[in-house]
Amino acid sequence: MNLASDNKNKIPSRRRPLILVTNDDGIYSPGIRALTKAMNDIGDVVVIAPMNEQSAVGHSITLNSPIRVEDYNFGDELSHVPALAISGTPCDCMKLALHELLHRKPDLAVSGINKGSNVAINVIYSGTISAATESSVNGIDSIAFSLDTTDITSDFTPSGNYAKTIAQKVLRSQLPRGVVLSVNVPNIPENEIKGIQVTRQARSQWEEVFVGRKDPSNKPYYWYRGMLNILDQSKDTDSTVVDQGYVSITPLQYDRTAHGCIDVMKTWRWGDF
Amino acid sequence: MNLASDNKNKIPSRRRPLILVTNDDGIYSPGIRALTKAMNDIGDVVVIAPMNEQSAVGHSITLNSPIRVEDYNFGDELSHVPALAISGTPCDCMKLALHELLHRKPDLAVSGINKGSNVAINVIYSGTISAATESSVNGIDSIAFSLDTTDITSDFTPSGNYAKTIAQKVLRSQLPRGVVLSVNVPNIPENEIKGIQVTRQARSQWEEVFVGRKDPSNKPYYWYRGMLNILDQSKDTDSTVVDQGYVSITPLQYDRTAHGCIDVMKTWRWGDF
Repeated sequence: MNLASDNKNKIPSRRRPLILVTNDDGIYSPGIRALTKAMNDIGDVVVIAPMNEQSAVGHSITLNSPIRVEDYNFGDELSHVPALAISGTPCDCMKLALHELLHRKPDLAVSGINKGSNVAINVIYSGTISAATESSVNGIDSIAFSLDTTDITSDFTPSGNYAKTIAQKVLRSQLPRGVVLSVNVPNIPENEIKGIQVTRQARSQWEEVFVGRKDPSNKPYYWYRGMLNILDQSKDTDSTVVDQGYVSITPLQYDRTAHGCIDVMKTWRWGDF
Repeated sequence: MNLASDNKNKIPSRRRPLILVTNDDGIYSPGIRALTKAMNDIGDVVVIAPMNEQSAVGHSITLNSPIRVEDYNFGDELSHVPALAISGTPCDCMKLALHELLHRKPDLAVSGINKGSNVAINVIYSGTISAATESSVNGIDSIAFSLDTTDITSDFTPSGNYAKTIAQKVLRSQLPRGVVLSVNVPNIPENEIKGIQVTRQARSQWEEVFVGRKDPSNKPYYWYRGMLNILDQSKDTDSTVVDQGYVSITPLQYDRTAHGCIDVMKTWRWGDF
Protein backbone atom coordinates (compact mmCIF):
# COMPACT_ATOMS: atom_id res chain seq x y z
CA MET A 1 0.00 0.00 0.00
CA ASN A 2 1.38 3.36 -0.93
CA LEU A 3 -0.42 6.49 0.04
CA ALA A 4 2.00 8.86 -1.66
CA SER A 5 0.91 7.59 -5.06
CA ASP A 6 1.21 10.78 -7.09
CA ASN A 7 4.78 11.20 -6.06
CA LYS A 8 5.50 7.52 -6.55
CA ASN A 9 4.49 7.80 -10.19
CA LYS A 10 7.43 10.11 -10.67
CA ILE A 11 9.92 7.42 -9.63
CA PRO A 12 12.00 6.71 -12.73
CA SER A 13 12.50 3.60 -14.85
CA ARG A 14 15.35 1.15 -15.05
CA ARG A 15 18.06 2.50 -17.37
CA ARG A 16 20.21 4.59 -15.05
CA PRO A 17 21.14 3.46 -11.52
CA LEU A 18 18.48 4.26 -8.95
CA ILE A 19 19.98 6.21 -6.06
CA LEU A 20 18.14 6.74 -2.78
CA VAL A 21 19.14 9.88 -0.87
CA THR A 22 18.49 10.66 2.79
CA ASN A 23 20.15 12.55 5.66
CA ASP A 24 19.73 13.50 9.29
CA ASP A 25 19.84 17.30 9.06
CA GLY A 26 16.40 17.30 7.43
CA ILE A 27 15.18 17.67 3.86
CA TYR A 28 15.54 21.48 3.94
CA SER A 29 19.27 21.40 4.65
CA PRO A 30 21.83 22.59 2.07
CA GLY A 31 23.82 19.35 2.47
CA ILE A 32 21.08 17.09 1.10
CA ARG A 33 20.49 19.50 -1.76
CA ALA A 34 24.19 19.32 -2.73
CA LEU A 35 24.13 15.53 -2.48
CA THR A 36 20.93 15.26 -4.54
CA LYS A 37 22.46 17.48 -7.21
CA ALA A 38 25.61 15.36 -7.32
CA MET A 39 23.68 12.07 -7.53
CA ASN A 40 21.38 13.51 -10.19
CA ASP A 41 24.40 13.71 -12.51
CA ILE A 42 25.03 9.95 -12.33
CA GLY A 43 21.65 8.31 -11.74
CA ASP A 44 17.93 8.59 -11.19
CA VAL A 45 17.44 10.01 -7.74
CA VAL A 46 14.69 9.61 -5.15
CA VAL A 47 14.94 11.61 -1.93
CA ILE A 48 13.20 10.31 1.21
CA ALA A 49 14.42 12.31 4.18
CA PRO A 50 13.33 13.59 7.60
CA MET A 51 11.08 16.66 7.75
CA ASN A 52 13.10 18.00 10.68
CA GLU A 53 16.61 17.91 12.00
CA GLN A 54 17.48 14.53 13.53
CA SER A 55 21.10 14.91 14.56
CA ALA A 56 22.52 12.48 17.11
CA VAL A 57 19.45 10.25 16.96
CA GLY A 58 21.72 7.28 16.22
CA HIS A 59 19.88 4.22 15.04
CA SER A 60 16.53 5.11 16.59
CA ILE A 61 13.29 4.02 14.98
CA THR A 62 9.74 5.21 15.58
CA LEU A 63 7.65 2.48 17.19
CA ASN A 64 5.03 4.29 19.24
CA SER A 65 3.95 7.14 16.94
CA PRO A 66 2.46 7.13 13.47
CA ILE A 67 4.78 8.32 10.69
CA ARG A 68 3.66 11.03 8.26
CA VAL A 69 4.79 11.27 4.65
CA GLU A 70 4.58 14.53 2.70
CA ASP A 71 5.51 15.48 -0.85
CA TYR A 72 8.46 17.80 -1.23
CA ASN A 73 9.96 19.64 -4.17
CA PHE A 74 13.53 20.90 -4.31
CA GLY A 75 12.60 23.39 -7.05
CA ASP A 76 14.91 24.89 -9.69
CA GLU A 77 17.16 22.37 -11.46
CA LEU A 78 16.00 19.61 -9.09
CA SER A 79 12.25 20.09 -9.52
CA HIS A 80 11.99 16.78 -11.43
CA VAL A 81 13.43 14.78 -8.50
CA PRO A 82 10.80 12.78 -6.59
CA ALA A 83 11.11 13.71 -2.93
CA LEU A 84 9.22 12.86 0.25
CA ALA A 85 9.58 14.37 3.72
CA ILE A 86 9.08 11.91 6.61
CA SER A 87 8.06 12.73 10.19
CA GLY A 88 10.62 10.31 11.59
CA THR A 89 14.25 9.40 12.00
CA PRO A 90 16.84 8.66 9.28
CA CYS A 91 16.32 4.93 9.94
CA ASP A 92 12.57 5.32 9.56
CA CYS A 93 13.19 6.96 6.18
CA MET A 94 15.27 4.06 4.95
CA LYS A 95 12.85 1.43 6.21
CA LEU A 96 9.83 3.20 4.77
CA ALA A 97 11.63 3.84 1.46
CA LEU A 98 12.83 0.28 0.99
CA HIS A 99 9.74 -1.55 2.21
CA GLU A 100 6.89 0.71 1.25
CA LEU A 101 7.57 3.70 -0.97
CA LEU A 102 9.98 2.56 -3.70
CA HIS A 103 8.96 0.39 -6.63
CA ARG A 104 12.29 -1.40 -6.71
CA LYS A 105 15.50 -1.85 -4.78
CA PRO A 106 17.86 1.07 -5.30
CA ASP A 107 21.34 0.40 -6.67
CA LEU A 108 22.86 2.72 -4.11
CA ALA A 109 21.78 4.55 -0.97
CA VAL A 110 23.55 7.71 0.19
CA SER A 111 23.11 9.78 3.32
CA GLY A 112 24.21 13.36 3.96
CA ILE A 113 25.97 15.57 3.28
CA ASN A 114 26.02 16.04 7.03
CA LYS A 115 26.82 19.43 8.51
CA GLY A 116 29.65 18.23 10.76
CA SER A 117 32.18 15.45 10.54
CA ASN A 118 31.35 11.96 11.76
CA VAL A 119 34.73 10.66 12.80
CA ALA A 120 36.02 8.58 15.71
CA ILE A 121 33.41 7.62 18.35
CA ASN A 122 30.84 9.94 16.73
CA VAL A 123 30.11 7.07 14.36
CA ILE A 124 27.87 5.52 17.03
CA TYR A 125 25.75 8.66 17.57
CA SER A 126 25.40 9.73 13.95
CA GLY A 127 21.98 9.59 12.30
CA THR A 128 23.73 10.07 8.94
CA ILE A 129 25.74 6.89 9.38
CA SER A 130 22.80 5.02 10.91
CA ALA A 131 20.71 5.68 7.79
CA ALA A 132 23.44 4.26 5.56
CA THR A 133 23.85 1.33 7.96
CA GLU A 134 20.12 0.59 7.77
CA SER A 135 20.15 0.37 3.96
CA SER A 136 23.34 -1.71 4.10
CA VAL A 137 21.61 -4.17 6.46
CA ASN A 138 18.99 -4.41 3.72
CA GLY A 139 21.64 -5.46 1.20
CA ILE A 140 22.11 -2.12 -0.57
CA ASP A 141 25.53 -0.56 -1.13
CA SER A 142 25.46 2.52 1.09
CA ILE A 143 27.61 5.56 1.78
CA ALA A 144 27.39 8.28 4.45
CA PHE A 145 28.88 11.68 3.61
CA SER A 146 29.86 14.36 6.14
CA LEU A 147 31.50 17.76 5.79
CA ASP A 148 33.83 18.85 8.57
CA THR A 149 32.07 22.12 9.40
CA THR A 150 29.79 23.60 12.04
CA ASP A 151 28.72 26.40 9.68
CA ILE A 152 25.51 25.77 7.71
CA THR A 153 26.59 28.38 5.13
CA SER A 154 29.70 26.34 4.20
CA ASP A 155 30.19 25.42 0.54
CA PHE A 156 28.91 21.86 0.03
CA THR A 157 30.03 21.81 -3.64
CA PRO A 158 33.46 20.18 -3.13
CA SER A 159 31.98 17.46 -0.92
CA GLY A 160 29.22 16.99 -3.53
CA ASN A 161 31.87 16.46 -6.19
CA TYR A 162 33.71 13.91 -4.06
CA ALA A 163 30.39 12.22 -3.31
CA LYS A 164 29.84 11.82 -7.05
CA THR A 165 33.32 10.36 -7.59
CA ILE A 166 33.01 7.90 -4.70
CA ALA A 167 29.44 6.90 -5.56
CA GLN A 168 30.48 6.11 -9.15
CA LYS A 169 33.30 3.93 -7.89
CA VAL A 170 30.96 2.03 -5.56
CA LEU A 171 28.33 1.60 -8.30
CA ARG A 172 31.00 0.01 -10.52
CA SER A 173 32.84 -2.08 -7.92
CA GLN A 174 30.29 -3.11 -5.24
CA LEU A 175 31.09 -3.08 -1.54
CA PRO A 176 31.98 -6.18 0.50
CA ARG A 177 28.96 -7.71 2.22
CA GLY A 178 28.05 -6.11 5.56
CA VAL A 179 30.22 -3.06 4.95
CA VAL A 180 29.06 0.56 4.70
CA LEU A 181 31.32 3.50 3.87
CA SER A 182 31.60 6.65 5.96
CA VAL A 183 33.14 9.53 4.02
CA ASN A 184 34.39 12.69 5.75
CA VAL A 185 35.41 15.71 3.68
CA PRO A 186 37.57 18.59 4.99
CA ASN A 187 35.99 22.03 4.74
CA ILE A 188 38.58 23.64 2.47
CA PRO A 189 38.54 24.83 -1.15
CA GLU A 190 38.36 21.90 -3.57
CA ASN A 191 41.78 22.60 -5.12
CA GLU A 192 43.38 22.33 -1.67
CA ILE A 193 41.99 18.83 -0.98
CA LYS A 194 44.98 16.48 -1.23
CA GLY A 195 43.17 13.29 -2.27
CA ILE A 196 41.34 10.31 -0.77
CA GLN A 197 42.56 8.01 1.99
CA VAL A 198 41.06 4.80 3.42
CA THR A 199 41.05 5.03 7.22
CA ARG A 200 39.94 3.50 10.50
CA GLN A 201 38.01 5.14 13.35
CA ALA A 202 40.27 7.10 15.70
CA ARG A 203 40.09 6.27 19.39
CA SER A 204 38.45 9.17 21.14
CA GLN A 205 36.27 10.22 24.01
CA TRP A 206 33.77 12.98 24.58
CA GLU A 207 34.68 15.40 27.30
CA GLU A 208 31.19 15.94 28.63
CA VAL A 209 29.88 19.07 30.22
CA PHE A 210 26.37 19.57 31.53
CA VAL A 211 25.27 23.14 32.14
CA GLY A 212 22.84 23.18 35.06
CA ARG A 213 20.19 25.92 35.25
CA LYS A 214 16.95 26.62 37.04
CA ASP A 215 13.68 27.40 35.31
CA PRO A 216 11.38 30.31 36.40
CA SER A 217 9.72 28.01 38.95
CA ASN A 218 13.17 27.20 40.38
CA LYS A 219 13.18 23.63 39.04
CA PRO A 220 16.56 22.40 37.77
CA TYR A 221 17.38 21.36 34.21
CA TYR A 222 20.53 20.57 32.26
CA TRP A 223 21.89 21.40 28.84
CA TYR A 224 24.30 18.93 27.35
CA ARG A 225 27.56 20.25 25.92
CA GLY A 226 30.58 18.22 25.00
CA MET A 227 33.87 18.31 23.17
CA LEU A 228 35.38 15.43 21.25
CA ASN A 229 38.90 14.52 22.40
CA ILE A 230 40.86 12.48 19.87
CA LEU A 231 43.09 10.07 21.83
CA ASP A 232 44.85 8.65 18.79
CA GLN A 233 47.03 10.73 16.48
CA SER A 234 48.02 7.86 14.16
CA LYS A 235 48.33 8.67 10.47
CA ASP A 236 45.69 6.15 9.38
CA THR A 237 42.67 7.46 11.29
CA ASP A 238 39.60 9.29 9.97
CA SER A 239 40.20 12.39 12.09
CA THR A 240 43.90 12.71 11.26
CA VAL A 241 43.54 12.51 7.49
CA VAL A 242 40.64 15.01 7.45
CA ASP A 243 42.72 17.40 9.56
CA GLN A 244 45.51 17.01 7.03
CA GLY A 245 43.27 17.95 4.11
CA TYR A 246 42.35 14.51 2.75
CA VAL A 247 38.93 13.00 2.14
CA SER A 248 38.60 10.06 4.55
CA ILE A 249 36.78 6.83 3.60
CA THR A 250 36.20 4.50 6.56
CA PRO A 251 34.66 1.05 5.94
CA LEU A 252 32.29 0.27 8.83
CA GLN A 253 30.54 -2.96 9.75
CA TYR A 254 27.26 -3.42 11.59
CA ASP A 255 28.17 -6.76 13.17
CA ARG A 256 29.29 -5.52 16.57
CA THR A 257 30.43 -8.94 17.86
CA ALA A 258 33.92 -8.64 19.35
CA HIS A 259 35.00 -11.80 17.53
CA GLY A 260 38.59 -11.35 18.75
CA CYS A 261 37.65 -11.93 22.37
CA ILE A 262 35.06 -14.70 22.11
CA ASP A 263 37.68 -17.37 22.82
CA VAL A 264 38.95 -15.52 25.90
CA MET A 265 35.40 -15.04 27.16
CA LYS A 266 34.80 -18.77 26.77
CA THR A 267 37.67 -19.51 29.17
CA TRP A 268 35.89 -17.57 31.92
CA ARG A 269 34.16 -20.09 34.17
CA TRP A 270 30.74 -18.43 34.07
CA GLY A 271 29.04 -21.22 36.00
CA ASP A 272 31.36 -21.17 39.05
CA PHE A 273 30.03 -19.33 42.11
CA MET B 1 27.29 21.53 39.66
CA ASN B 2 24.72 19.12 40.94
CA LEU B 3 21.17 20.22 41.40
CA ALA B 4 19.92 16.96 42.80
CA SER B 5 21.99 17.42 45.92
CA ASP B 6 19.71 15.80 48.49
CA ASN B 7 19.65 12.63 46.52
CA LYS B 8 23.37 12.83 45.84
CA ASN B 9 24.08 12.79 49.55
CA LYS B 10 22.59 9.32 49.64
CA ILE B 11 25.24 7.98 47.25
CA PRO B 12 27.22 5.46 49.28
CA SER B 13 30.86 5.29 50.34
CA ARG B 14 33.74 3.24 49.04
CA ARG B 15 33.69 -0.21 50.65
CA ARG B 16 31.43 -2.22 48.36
CA PRO B 17 31.58 -1.92 44.54
CA LEU B 18 29.56 0.97 43.19
CA ILE B 19 27.12 -0.24 40.54
CA LEU B 20 25.27 2.15 38.24
CA VAL B 21 21.95 0.85 36.93
CA THR B 22 19.96 2.14 33.96
CA ASN B 23 17.60 0.80 31.28
CA ASP B 24 15.52 1.84 28.28
CA ASP B 25 12.07 0.67 29.39
CA GLY B 26 11.92 3.47 31.96
CA ILE B 27 12.47 3.63 35.71
CA TYR B 28 8.95 2.31 36.46
CA SER B 29 9.48 -0.97 34.62
CA PRO B 30 9.67 -4.31 36.49
CA GLY B 31 12.94 -5.21 34.70
CA ILE B 32 14.96 -2.40 36.27
CA ARG B 33 13.49 -3.18 39.68
CA ALA B 34 14.63 -6.81 39.36
CA LEU B 35 18.09 -5.69 38.23
CA THR B 36 18.38 -3.15 41.06
CA LYS B 37 17.41 -5.82 43.58
CA ALA B 38 20.01 -8.23 42.18
CA MET B 39 22.79 -5.60 42.17
CA ASN B 40 21.84 -4.50 45.68
CA ASP B 41 22.93 -7.94 46.92
CA ILE B 42 26.49 -7.48 45.65
CA GLY B 43 27.23 -3.74 45.76
CA ASP B 44 26.11 -0.22 46.48
CA VAL B 45 23.63 0.71 43.80
CA VAL B 46 22.70 4.01 42.18
CA VAL B 47 19.88 4.03 39.63
CA ILE B 48 19.79 6.77 36.98
CA ALA B 49 17.24 5.83 34.34
CA PRO B 50 14.78 7.35 31.86
CA MET B 51 11.45 8.68 33.16
CA ASN B 52 9.67 7.17 30.18
CA GLU B 53 10.01 4.22 27.85
CA GLN B 54 12.84 4.70 25.36
CA SER B 55 12.82 1.48 23.38
CA ALA B 56 14.56 1.43 19.99
CA VAL B 57 16.14 4.83 20.53
CA GLY B 58 19.55 3.33 19.79
CA HIS B 59 22.43 5.57 20.69
CA SER B 60 20.50 8.84 20.53
CA ILE B 61 21.44 11.75 22.76
CA THR B 62 19.48 14.89 23.61
CA LEU B 63 21.16 17.96 22.13
CA ASN B 64 18.34 20.41 21.50
CA SER B 65 16.21 20.10 24.62
CA PRO B 66 17.00 20.62 28.28
CA ILE B 67 17.17 17.49 30.40
CA ARG B 68 15.18 17.22 33.64
CA VAL B 69 16.29 15.20 36.67
CA GLU B 70 13.80 14.05 39.32
CA ASP B 71 14.21 12.06 42.52
CA TYR B 72 12.69 8.62 42.51
CA ASN B 73 12.16 6.01 45.19
CA PHE B 74 11.66 2.31 44.53
CA GLY B 75 10.02 1.84 47.94
CA ASP B 76 9.89 -1.36 50.00
CA GLU B 77 13.18 -3.23 50.32
CA LEU B 78 14.81 -0.82 47.83
CA SER B 79 13.80 2.44 49.50
CA HIS B 80 17.44 3.07 50.54
CA VAL B 81 18.67 2.99 46.92
CA PRO B 82 19.47 6.45 45.50
CA ALA B 83 17.53 6.79 42.26
CA LEU B 84 16.99 9.57 39.72
CA ALA B 85 14.57 9.69 36.79
CA ILE B 86 15.88 11.51 33.70
CA SER B 87 13.83 13.11 30.92
CA GLY B 88 16.11 11.72 28.25
CA THR B 89 17.50 8.68 26.53
CA PRO B 90 19.52 5.81 28.04
CA CYS B 91 22.70 7.45 26.68
CA ASP B 92 21.76 10.75 28.30
CA CYS B 93 21.37 8.89 31.60
CA MET B 94 24.86 7.43 31.37
CA LYS B 95 26.48 10.69 30.32
CA LEU B 96 24.71 12.67 33.03
CA ALA B 97 25.47 10.02 35.66
CA LEU B 98 29.16 9.73 34.86
CA HIS B 99 29.92 13.39 34.24
CA GLU B 100 27.58 15.20 36.57
CA LEU B 101 25.61 13.22 39.11
CA LEU B 102 27.96 10.62 40.60
CA HIS B 103 30.71 11.42 43.10
CA ARG B 104 33.03 8.77 41.70
CA LYS B 105 33.44 6.39 38.81
CA PRO B 106 31.29 3.29 39.26
CA ASP B 107 32.99 -0.12 39.26
CA LEU B 108 30.30 -1.54 37.01
CA ALA B 109 27.42 -0.23 34.89
CA VAL B 110 24.44 -2.43 34.06
CA SER B 111 21.46 -1.80 31.82
CA GLY B 112 18.12 -3.61 31.77
CA ILE B 113 16.62 -6.02 32.37
CA ASN B 114 15.01 -5.25 29.04
CA LYS B 115 11.55 -6.54 28.26
CA GLY B 116 12.46 -8.29 25.01
CA SER B 117 15.60 -9.99 23.75
CA ASN B 118 18.33 -7.99 22.05
CA VAL B 119 19.85 -10.56 19.72
CA ALA B 120 21.11 -10.49 16.13
CA ILE B 121 20.73 -7.15 14.29
CA ASN B 122 18.59 -5.77 17.16
CA VAL B 123 21.86 -4.90 18.85
CA ILE B 124 22.08 -1.73 16.72
CA TYR B 125 18.57 -0.48 17.65
CA SER B 126 18.64 -1.31 21.33
CA GLY B 127 18.67 1.50 23.86
CA THR B 128 19.56 -1.07 26.54
CA ILE B 129 22.77 -2.00 24.74
CA SER B 130 23.51 1.62 23.79
CA ALA B 131 23.46 2.63 27.45
CA ALA B 132 25.98 -0.09 28.31
CA THR B 133 28.04 0.90 25.27
CA GLU B 134 28.11 4.51 26.41
CA SER B 135 29.51 3.61 29.84
CA SER B 136 31.98 1.22 28.22
CA VAL B 137 33.22 4.07 25.99
CA ASN B 138 33.82 5.90 29.27
CA GLY B 139 36.05 3.10 30.50
CA ILE B 140 33.59 1.32 32.80
CA ASP B 141 32.93 -2.41 32.63
CA SER B 142 29.36 -2.62 31.37
CA ILE B 143 26.71 -5.25 30.82
CA ALA B 144 23.30 -5.11 29.10
CA PHE B 145 20.66 -7.61 30.23
CA SER B 146 17.57 -8.61 28.25
CA LEU B 147 14.80 -11.12 28.89
CA ASP B 148 13.34 -12.91 25.89
CA THR B 149 9.72 -11.92 26.44
CA THR B 150 7.10 -9.54 25.12
CA ASP B 151 5.03 -9.86 28.28
CA ILE B 152 5.64 -7.21 30.93
CA THR B 153 4.19 -9.53 33.60
CA SER B 154 6.95 -12.11 33.00
CA ASP B 155 9.03 -13.22 35.96
CA PHE B 156 12.30 -11.22 35.97
CA THR B 157 13.67 -13.15 38.98
CA PRO B 158 15.66 -15.79 37.06
CA SER B 159 17.26 -13.15 34.83
CA GLY B 160 17.99 -11.08 37.96
CA ASN B 161 19.79 -14.07 39.47
CA TYR B 162 21.84 -14.59 36.32
CA ALA B 163 22.59 -10.86 36.24
CA LYS B 164 24.01 -11.18 39.75
CA THR B 165 26.17 -14.16 38.82
CA ILE B 166 27.52 -12.50 35.65
CA ALA B 167 28.07 -9.12 37.31
CA GLN B 168 30.10 -10.77 40.10
CA LYS B 169 32.26 -12.51 37.52
CA VAL B 170 32.89 -9.25 35.64
CA LEU B 171 33.66 -7.37 38.88
CA ARG B 172 36.30 -9.98 39.69
CA SER B 173 37.79 -10.49 36.23
CA GLN B 174 37.47 -7.17 34.31
CA LEU B 175 36.43 -7.02 30.66
CA PRO B 176 38.86 -6.52 27.76
CA ARG B 177 39.17 -2.86 26.75
CA GLY B 178 36.49 -1.64 24.35
CA VAL B 179 34.24 -4.64 24.98
CA VAL B 180 30.73 -4.56 26.45
CA LEU B 181 28.65 -7.65 27.24
CA SER B 182 25.12 -8.23 26.00
CA VAL B 183 23.32 -10.90 27.99
CA ASN B 184 20.07 -12.49 26.80
CA VAL B 185 18.07 -14.75 29.10
CA PRO B 186 15.38 -17.21 27.96
CA ASN B 187 11.96 -16.70 29.49
CA ILE B 188 11.65 -20.10 31.17
CA PRO B 189 11.65 -21.28 34.80
CA GLU B 190 15.10 -20.93 36.35
CA ASN B 191 15.57 -24.69 36.89
CA GLU B 192 15.04 -25.26 33.16
CA ILE B 193 17.84 -22.86 32.10
CA LYS B 194 20.65 -25.10 30.84
CA GLY B 195 23.61 -22.79 31.59
CA ILE B 196 25.60 -19.95 30.06
CA GLN B 197 27.12 -19.79 26.56
CA VAL B 198 29.39 -17.19 24.94
CA THR B 199 27.99 -16.33 21.51
CA ARG B 200 28.19 -14.07 18.46
CA GLN B 201 25.42 -12.00 16.85
CA ALA B 202 23.28 -14.06 14.45
CA ARG B 203 22.88 -12.76 10.93
CA SER B 204 19.33 -11.56 10.52
CA GLN B 205 17.06 -9.11 8.84
CA TRP B 206 13.85 -7.38 9.76
CA GLU B 207 10.90 -8.22 7.60
CA GLU B 208 9.36 -4.78 7.56
CA VAL B 209 5.69 -3.99 7.31
CA PHE B 210 4.17 -0.54 7.32
CA VAL B 211 0.46 -0.32 7.98
CA GLY B 212 -0.95 2.65 6.06
CA ARG B 213 -4.03 4.44 7.38
CA LYS B 214 -5.85 7.72 6.90
CA ASP B 215 -6.65 10.14 9.70
CA PRO B 216 -10.10 11.77 10.15
CA SER B 217 -9.06 14.55 7.72
CA ASN B 218 -8.11 11.89 5.16
CA LYS B 219 -4.38 12.49 5.49
CA PRO B 220 -2.19 9.37 5.32
CA TYR B 221 0.01 8.03 8.10
CA TYR B 222 1.95 4.82 8.72
CA TRP B 223 2.48 2.50 11.63
CA TYR B 224 5.70 0.53 11.66
CA ARG B 225 5.51 -3.20 12.25
CA GLY B 226 8.24 -5.69 11.67
CA MET B 227 9.33 -9.23 12.33
CA LEU B 228 12.90 -10.34 12.94
CA ASN B 229 14.04 -13.10 10.58
CA ILE B 230 17.09 -15.02 11.77
CA LEU B 231 19.13 -15.98 8.70
CA ASP B 232 21.71 -17.99 10.58
CA GLN B 233 20.89 -21.15 12.53
CA SER B 234 24.46 -21.87 13.66
CA LYS B 235 24.91 -23.28 17.14
CA ASP B 236 27.13 -20.41 18.34
CA THR B 237 24.75 -17.47 17.86
CA ASP B 238 22.88 -15.42 20.47
CA SER B 239 19.45 -16.27 19.08
CA THR B 240 20.09 -20.02 18.78
CA VAL B 241 21.36 -20.55 22.31
CA VAL B 242 18.51 -18.53 23.85
CA ASP B 243 16.01 -20.58 21.85
CA GLN B 244 17.68 -23.71 23.23
CA GLY B 245 17.30 -22.56 26.83
CA TYR B 246 20.77 -21.13 27.53
CA VAL B 247 21.74 -17.69 28.77
CA SER B 248 23.68 -16.00 25.95
CA ILE B 249 26.64 -13.68 26.61
CA THR B 250 27.80 -11.80 23.50
CA PRO B 251 30.92 -9.62 23.71
CA LEU B 252 30.31 -6.49 21.60
CA GLN B 253 32.72 -3.78 20.50
CA TYR B 254 31.99 -0.14 19.70
CA ASP B 255 34.77 0.29 17.16
CA ARG B 256 32.75 -0.24 13.99
CA THR B 257 35.76 -0.08 11.63
CA ALA B 258 35.65 -3.07 9.25
CA HIS B 259 39.38 -3.69 9.81
CA GLY B 260 39.25 -6.84 7.69
CA CYS B 261 38.47 -4.93 4.52
CA ILE B 262 40.67 -1.84 4.87
CA ASP B 263 43.42 -3.41 2.75
CA VAL B 264 40.96 -4.34 -0.01
CA MET B 265 39.47 -0.85 0.04
CA LYS B 266 42.96 0.62 -0.33
CA THR B 267 43.44 -1.30 -3.60
CA TRP B 268 40.43 0.51 -5.10
CA ARG B 269 41.79 3.35 -7.23
CA TRP B 270 39.62 6.07 -5.70
CA GLY B 271 41.26 8.85 -7.66
CA ASP B 272 40.72 7.38 -11.15
CA PHE B 273 37.78 8.77 -13.10
